[in-house]
Amino acid sequence: MGEQDPRRRTMTRRRLLGSSAAAVGAVGAGAGIYGVADSAERTEAVTGTETVAWDGPRQAGIATAPPQAHAIFVGLDLLPKVGAAELTGIMKVWTADIARLTQGRPALADTEPELAAAPARLTVTVGYGPGVFVALDRPEVAPPLPAFAIDRLDPAYTGADLALQVCADDPVTVAHAVRVLVKNVRSLVTVRWMQRGFRRARGAETPGTTMRNLMGQVDGTTNPEAGTADFDSLVWDDGTDRPWMREGTTMVLRRIRIELDTWDELDRPGRELSVGRTLSTGAPLTGAYESDEPDFSATDRNGIPVIPPSAHIARARHTHAGERIFRRVYNYDDPPAPGQVSNSGLLFVSFQRDITTQFLPIQRRLDEFDALNEWTTPVGSAVFVIPPGVGSGSYIGEGLFGR
Amino acid sequence: MGEQDPRRRTMTRRRLLGSSAAAVGAVGAGAGIYGVADSAERTEAVTGTETVAWDGPRQAGIATAPPQAHAIFVGLDLLPKVGAAELTGIMKVWTADIARLTQGRPALADTEPELAAAPARLTVTVGYGPGVFVALDRPEVAPPLPAFAIDRLDPAYTGADLALQVCADDPVTVAHAVRVLVKNVRSLVTVRWMQRGFRRARGAETPGTTMRNLMGQVDGTTNPEAGTADFDSLVWDDGTDRPWMREGTTMVLRRIRIELDTWDELDRPGRELSVGRTLSTGAPLTGAYESDEPDFSATDRNGIPVIPPSAHIARARHTHAGERIFRRVYNYDDPPAPGQVSNSGLLFVSFQRDITTQFLPIQRRLDEFDALNEWTTPVGSAVFVIPPGVGSGSYIGEGLFGR
Ligand code: HEM
Ligand code: HEM
Repeated sequence: MGEQDPRRRTMTRRRLLGSSAAAVGAVGAGAGIYGVADSAERTEAVTGTETVAWDGPRQAGIATAPPQAHAIFVGLDLLPKVGAAELTGIMKVWTADIARLTQGRPALADTEPELAAAPARLTVTVGYGPGVFVALDRPEVAPPLPAFAIDRLDPAYTGADLALQVCADDPVTVAHAVRVLVKNVRSLVTVRWMQRGFRRARGAETPGTTMRNLMGQVDGTTNPEAGTADFDSLVWDDGTDRPWMREGTTMVLRRIRIELDTWDELDRPGRELSVGRTLSTGAPLTGAYESDEPDFSATDRNGIPVIPPSAHIARARHTHAGERIFRRVYNYDDPPAPGQVSNSGLLFVSFQRDITTQFLPIQRRLDEFDALNEWTTPVGSAVFVIPPGVGSGSYIGEGLFGR
Repeated sequence: MGEQDPRRRTMTRRRLLGSSAAAVGAVGAGAGIYGVADSAERTEAVTGTETVAWDGPRQAGIATAPPQAHAIFVGLDLLPKVGAAELTGIMKVWTADIARLTQGRPALADTEPELAAAPARLTVTVGYGPGVFVALDRPEVAPPLPAFAIDRLDPAYTGADLALQVCADDPVTVAHAVRVLVKNVRSLVTVRWMQRGFRRARGAETPGTTMRNLMGQVDGTTNPEAGTADFDSLVWDDGTDRPWMREGTTMVLRRIRIELDTWDELDRPGRELSVGRTLSTGAPLTGAYESDEPDFSATDRNGIPVIPPSAHIARARHTHAGERIFRRVYNYDDPPAPGQVSNSGLLFVSFQRDITTQFLPIQRRLDEFDALNEWTTPVGSAVFVIPPGVGSGSYIGEGLFGR
């Protein structure tokens, strides 16, 4: 038990944090909670103590980079009795919970306060489905997507009145936060779905590289970079149409099953042609490095396009600069159905100012044709308005509900 | 895209590994696989490159400490045609896969070789359920547990002919390894269950402390310490009864649902009495530090025992030194059933030389009475023989199948 004796904890926080990245916050996790009978200095490894600001004009969990390793997406339905007053109540509770949990402090009346001690870059992003606007008797802002020919949607993963995107680098932190957030509003909502996603663990990524999905592809290369003016204009609403949406955005969540069994039968050249990029580095078939711009007009000596026009990146490529989205995807890997080997896929998540002009044209092209469609099947779909962020003294959605 | 340009990767591996723990291996992940068109030095963060030896007299994943952050337990059933020859085939395939994947190398014919590049302390532990001995027409070694009054077992989580315990600090690594291992033997087995467990992320634990489960309790305090003679004599078989079991052991896996809703209604003193330890530090109610020995005879001024005789640690405490087990548990947190808020619990995993003399007396006492039973319900149960480890040139189970 010597390893567990607090009197022997000799590493100081300073020593542990010495090599930490500078740009993030860090809290003395656990200290002072419930009169811990341990006078020795508490130490915490770096991943656990990192925090992301919860307040500000925009919600966290969108421009937060790199995306945290773990996510749970929760879709909630409002009970019939819920109107503006109850929605305001939910938002006040959530705002208070988020302000505390993301900073490594237990929620009010947190029954497992010690589990809050490692924020691990926890962010909570709140979204409103069409049902919220129905409950408020207000015009819908982000209607459900039209039906696509490729869709095989399971109602168990489709739609929801409210959404929570809960991300952190620690799975215990995510589980605790989801439990607190959901149980604190349980008298007003039911859980429609919970979808768990993951990326490489923090500290296990190759620094400076993009994540790989479970098809083995480098996924996320051509993506506006958080913090740039380009990103800001593509993602954040400027409030022109609706002042309360200023610095808000929209989220599309598509649960896309990957048919790994048939994908695994395809040879590597075939896979690379289906996307238009190499598997080893993620470089376009016309380039050498991941960051090289694809050349869609390049042909080989027989005049055949090097990147097939049917390739995923050729079909998904924007036709003008405003037709771009920010993708922040997660892998999923759930227990397989009887007789199956895997149940894996992608929680495709995109943020964009305007679904109609940015996301829809891309999705329509992919629906029409995309070589990748043979190995991918959308099985869930939901759309949410992401209201702006908040400061203390305010609550999420105040601009919408509080008028 | 600048961040993703390999030409700008300036951090060297040495610089990244400089602060790494010394006792673990590290591989140059990704290097040399499929002629990567990237001449810059590849870098990998520490968590990803750590390896655990796959070979040796004992299987990995048992004494491996601290337990990795992520685990998937897979229960497989043998198809009727499977006999000794096919079982030997499965073991040869798995041994080859394990030798490569755990060291950060793709499996043979790995269709997603790049996903193997971050071993992240991957270990794979192979277990044999009663069905293996039936298939071999050999006497059963670890029969299923007797029925307990507290059990509410779901067949979907109970029993299995073969088990894989796949652990790593990275969830992508675990998903990839499970996929490879299962699909490579799919013509001979069916998946009975897959159970996903997690602990704090590597780097998010408080160093030198024990994990907490989702009830908020410090869980794993009184546990033999890996690498000690005490641990060795409690866990590893000495081969007296069956020479082929020498350096093998047994695994009990109990899926135990936690009734968080009612648990959360109990006040802190009530919870502490139910276990016999404080929630804040995990110290016994008779002590100040987690490592203090509980004093089961101590009474308060009214003569009432400080640790109630019904407390979990009083009931679970061994009655003699040989009646101890090694616990290596994981949390689980799955999507809730309709109308529910959570579906959380513990994947209780214990290793012990002899289930009958070590595990069963404890489980019988807990079944008879344990204050914690009010908030915990066993919903799955399985028992496996863990054969000894292997070296190259051999395969898992050779001592059993190869005679
Ligand atoms: C399982 C489903 C999907 C997989 C596996 C997948 C995979 C990929 C990969 C490997 C790339 C190339 C690397 C990169 O730039 O990130 C890519 C690019 C892209 N994908 Fe997907 N994708 C999927 C679904 C979607 C969906 C549903 C959309 C939007 C409706 C989408 C939009 C895009 C866009 C806009 C690009 C960048 C194209 C460019 O301009 O180069 N993807 N995807
Ligand atoms: C959800 C179910 C369970 C929970 C939440 C739980 C929790 C705990 C906690 C908090 C402790 C005290 C700290 C420690 O020493 O680890 C403990 C101790 C222990 N538990 Fe459990 N436990 C569970 C099930 C079991 C089962 C099924 C067994 C074996 C049949 C078991 C055997 C033990 C033993 C042997 C100890 C050490 C007792 C001592 O000597 O102090 N537990 N458990």
